[in-house]
Amino acid sequence: MFMKRAFSVLNKNSISSVVKNSENAVRGPVAIRAIQMKKEMATGKKFKFEKLVPMHSGNPQALGQPPITFGREVLSIMMHHQFGQDVSYDRYSVDAVDRARHYLENMDPQAIGAYAGKPDGYDPIKKEVIDFIRERDGVDVDPSKLYLSTGASEAIEIFLRLLINDPNDAVMIPTPNYPLYSACCVAYGGQEVRYGLDENNNWALNLEDLQKSYQDAKDRGLNPKGIAVLNPGNPTGQVLTKQNLKDVIEFAYENNLLVIADEVYQANVYNGNEFHSMRGVMEELGDPIKSKLEMVSMHSVSKGFTGECGLRGGYFEFTNLDSFAEEMIYKLKAIKFCAPTPGMIAVGTMVNPPKEGVNSPEVVSLYNKEKDHVFGGLQRKAGELYEKLNNMEGITTNETQGALYSFARLHLPEKFIAEADSLGIHPDLHFCLNLLEETGMITVPGSGFGQEEGTAHIRMTNLIYNDKVMDDSMANMHKMVSELHGKYS
Amino acid sequence: MFMKRAFSVLNKNSISSVVKNSENAVRGPVAIRAIQMKKEMATGKKFKFEKLVPMHSGNPQALGQPPITFGREVLSIMMHHQFGQDVSYDRYSVDAVDRARHYLENMDPQAIGAYAGKPDGYDPIKKEVIDFIRERDGVDVDPSKLYLSTGASEAIEIFLRLLINDPNDAVMIPTPNYPLYSACCVAYGGQEVRYGLDENNNWALNLEDLQKSYQDAKDRGLNPKGIAVLNPGNPTGQVLTKQNLKDVIEFAYENNLLVIADEVYQANVYNGNEFHSMRGVMEELGDPIKSKLEMVSMHSVSKGFTGECGLRGGYFEFTNLDSFAEEMIYKLKAIKFCAPTPGMIAVGTMVNPPKEGVNSPEVVSLYNKEKDHVFGGLQRKAGELYEKLNNMEGITTNETQGALYSFARLHLPEKFIAEADSLGIHPDLHFCLNLLEETGMITVPGSGFGQEEGTAHIRMTNLIYNDKVMDDSMANMHKMVSELHGKYS
Ligand SMILES: Cc1ncc(COP(=O)(O)O)c(C=O)c1O
Ligand SMILES: Cc1ncc(COP(=O)(O)O)c(C=O)c1O
Repeated sequence: MFMKRAFSVLNKNSISSVVKNSENAVRGPVAIRAIQMKKEMATGKKFKFEKLVPMHSGNPQALGQPPITFGREVLSIMMHHQFGQDVSYDRYSVDAVDRARHYLENMDPQAIGAYAGKPDGYDPIKKEVIDFIRERDGVDVDPSKLYLSTGASEAIEIFLRLLINDPNDAVMIPTPNYPLYSACCVAYGGQEVRYGLDENNNWALNLEDLQKSYQDAKDRGLNPKGIAVLNPGNPTGQVLTKQNLKDVIEFAYENNLLVIADEVYQANVYNGNEFHSMRGVMEELGDPIKSKLEMVSMHSVSKGFTGECGLRGGYFEFTNLDSFAEEMIYKLKAIKFCAPTPGMIAVGTMVNPPKEGVNSPEVVSLYNKEKDHVFGGLQRKAGELYEKLNNMEGITTNETQGALYSFARLHLPEKFIAEADSLGIHPDLHFCLNLLEETGMITVPGSGFGQEEGTAHIRMTNLIYNDKVMDDSMANMHKMVSELHGKYS
Repeated sequence: MFMKRAFSVLNKNSISSVVKNSENAVRGPVAIRAIQMKKEMATGKKFKFEKLVPMHSGNPQALGQPPITFGREVLSIMMHHQFGQDVSYDRYSVDAVDRARHYLENMDPQAIGAYAGKPDGYDPIKKEVIDFIRERDGVDVDPSKLYLSTGASEAIEIFLRLLINDPNDAVMIPTPNYPLYSACCVAYGGQEVRYGLDENNNWALNLEDLQKSYQDAKDRGLNPKGIAVLNPGNPTGQVLTKQNLKDVIEFAYENNLLVIADEVYQANVYNGNEFHSMRGVMEELGDPIKSKLEMVSMHSVSKGFTGECGLRGGYFEFTNLDSFAEEMIYKLKAIKFCAPTPGMIAVGTMVNPPKEGVNSPEVVSLYNKEKDHVFGGLQRKAGELYEKLNNMEGITTNETQGALYSFARLHLPEKFIAEADSLGIHPDLHFCLNLLEETGMITVPGSGFGQEEGTAHIRMTNLIYNDKVMDDSMANMHKMVSELHGKYS
């Protein structure tokens, strides 16, 4: 009756190379193998460990980090179907009920189950973000230049989409780097130009290197249009100094680059290091930079001590854009309707938490206690990672000054490297797969982030909330590393 | 000190035409003018109406549609920071507490504030979707072919991304059509091939037209690879017959097209019309189609009587894909982490609502009452739109068999059309802008969806929950239309 279908529409040959080439190290071979193991464990298969330990993903609550009560109370209230009607909310703090009511009354439309009336999101939350930025940077943000977003990811996608118009258009991104930037460069048909971070100088940004990679790119006929700065860094865990930030801002200004300031880890800064926002530093540099430089800076509810990855909330704020570019941002956001409404609410409670003099003392003190507890744990574990990794044979690592990661250098035995070569995989992937089989620890190989040719690294999070699990895992890794060096030396 | 910056990085010339050319009618000129009016009203400016009436967007809760209690209870519980600990939940029904607990215990990770452990989302919810599809279509879905998504929008984006690999690759989409399809064709650098829906036959899909537009496209050197079928239709409000669906499935099979079955309005079917899922019809057609045809079908929590647009939840399920294509879907989803977790939970309570014999009688009866109330109102208003629009001078419309819209034909006076021409805008946009100024009703001009050359239309929703607002608006529109015909005749 029918013609036989000649071939499948979607297959290896027909799918665009921009899809095929985009990579995602964090959910790459190690994570995929772990998912498979989990399935096998469920059917009774035994491994050398009892439980998988997910240290691959910056996913705080997956590792036991508790949510902040105030933010969740507000969300729980707003989700309740009868909220806004005459119902008593004795389960919750009065402060949370008041905040929820404040949001509901000032939201447009007044329903958390509706697409927001504007692509930039709810005005009462935007107002809180504006206050937050004013307090942080001493600047007054124009509301039309602020959007609530589906995590910071959406901001990255939008700006890389806007920057790339030609196969030679390029965005400068650090090496090593959070993979979404590369994925977007590929997806939109542009190029990435890598600038190295200096491992010997705690992953600082080196101006000479930056200039050199810019010039190299130009010489190759590329057209660098933007530069991404991740501070604190992922996967590298460094916090950039104010001078470093000044240098890169001036460099961007001189070379007509739009600055993408990825500051999702701004609340994860440890041991006396200090976070400086690029927006604040730009302001400090004064004219002409402050009134000319195109910059977008972003934040997220996913990290910090908030850790609400699942809600997909964030914001981005931009400066000095051409009005046509602003229109395009509006349009791109409008196509997706709006950020998820619970994510927007979470942005509000993150940037405007309970405060002394405003909220009731118990609510403020609970908030401070929760914050200190979570933050303290992260800071302590960042220190433990640093010490314990440096104590392992053939592993050296920098101090985790900020963010949620240690990015440690692996000095692997020749024979192990040769074995990896014969398997056709990078030595650090070979290491991470071995670590997984031996200990159940899920990690990410450095090759997934880009790294200096000939080196090998591993990224691990400081997020294991349970101290014993953390201690046991590090001990297991120590043992595995020693055995590996024994076996392959 | 510095070189002067030569030019802005992002501007009209530098931004990709794929961004510039993507359009979004629903949030287009009429909605933008309405936002401006709202601002002006806030500063005291007077208009001819008291309040804006948003009939442009399929956004149920924005128009007063209440959420379903059971779904919101489950979400409210899961958002509570202490859930999972020993806390009594006397505010909620036992059934909601049980469901929430069931989700939490079976989710991976067991935290709504974490990225889901797998890009396809939570297993306990996927299981409910599989049961839902089995009950609807009599088929057993393979879990690896089912993804929870950020609304149905994400599914559309992913599949258009996969289909387009070459500037001549094309996707067949109806005229008129929901704008996201065109926007994605443009964004991914492919072509849209329009097939007409037959206004004179209640917007049915006409097989001869389909074949003709396919052949025309081939003759122009295009390569059609997929076909989108929206059933019930947006903006057209028709429900396709089983025969219609069989025809289009066979057509797709013969011509090697992947079928995109957009069924987000499947719960919005009125007045004795019957919804048939494409998945079910494909199964009924048997081999070779059922084991060969590539199809993706999708659903969303945004519409129906659920109406949870803000939560951004949905799912897509595909059949007969090449395993490489499956890998690419996994990768594209993984880059975005996961759908928003509250949206995933909302999918679960939508597809598996309280049921007799399973849940307590009060909870079942409340659910049925709420459902009947909301659905009944939508059905009634669909009928009112049909009658009242047909009673207006120069307006004819088909019955709204399903979805949330009436797509009415505007027969406008010559002079009015000439005036629009002189303003450089489509006559139906001119009409909708006039309607807005006169009555506050926000609507969408047909030109935003594509329509037969030389015709003019208006899309309006049946979503105004408040009867008086609905009646008054329709009366105001009636008056405006009469005056317009008087003035311009
Ligand atoms: C540097 C960096 N930027 C952005 C993101 C995106 O996070 P989200 O979309 O959850 O806000 C991440 C997530 O890990 C990140 O590490
Ligand atoms: C036909 C159709 N498909 C898909 C969508 C996307 O909806 P969502 O992403 O909210 O699920 C819509 C929204 O209006 C629609 O009308």
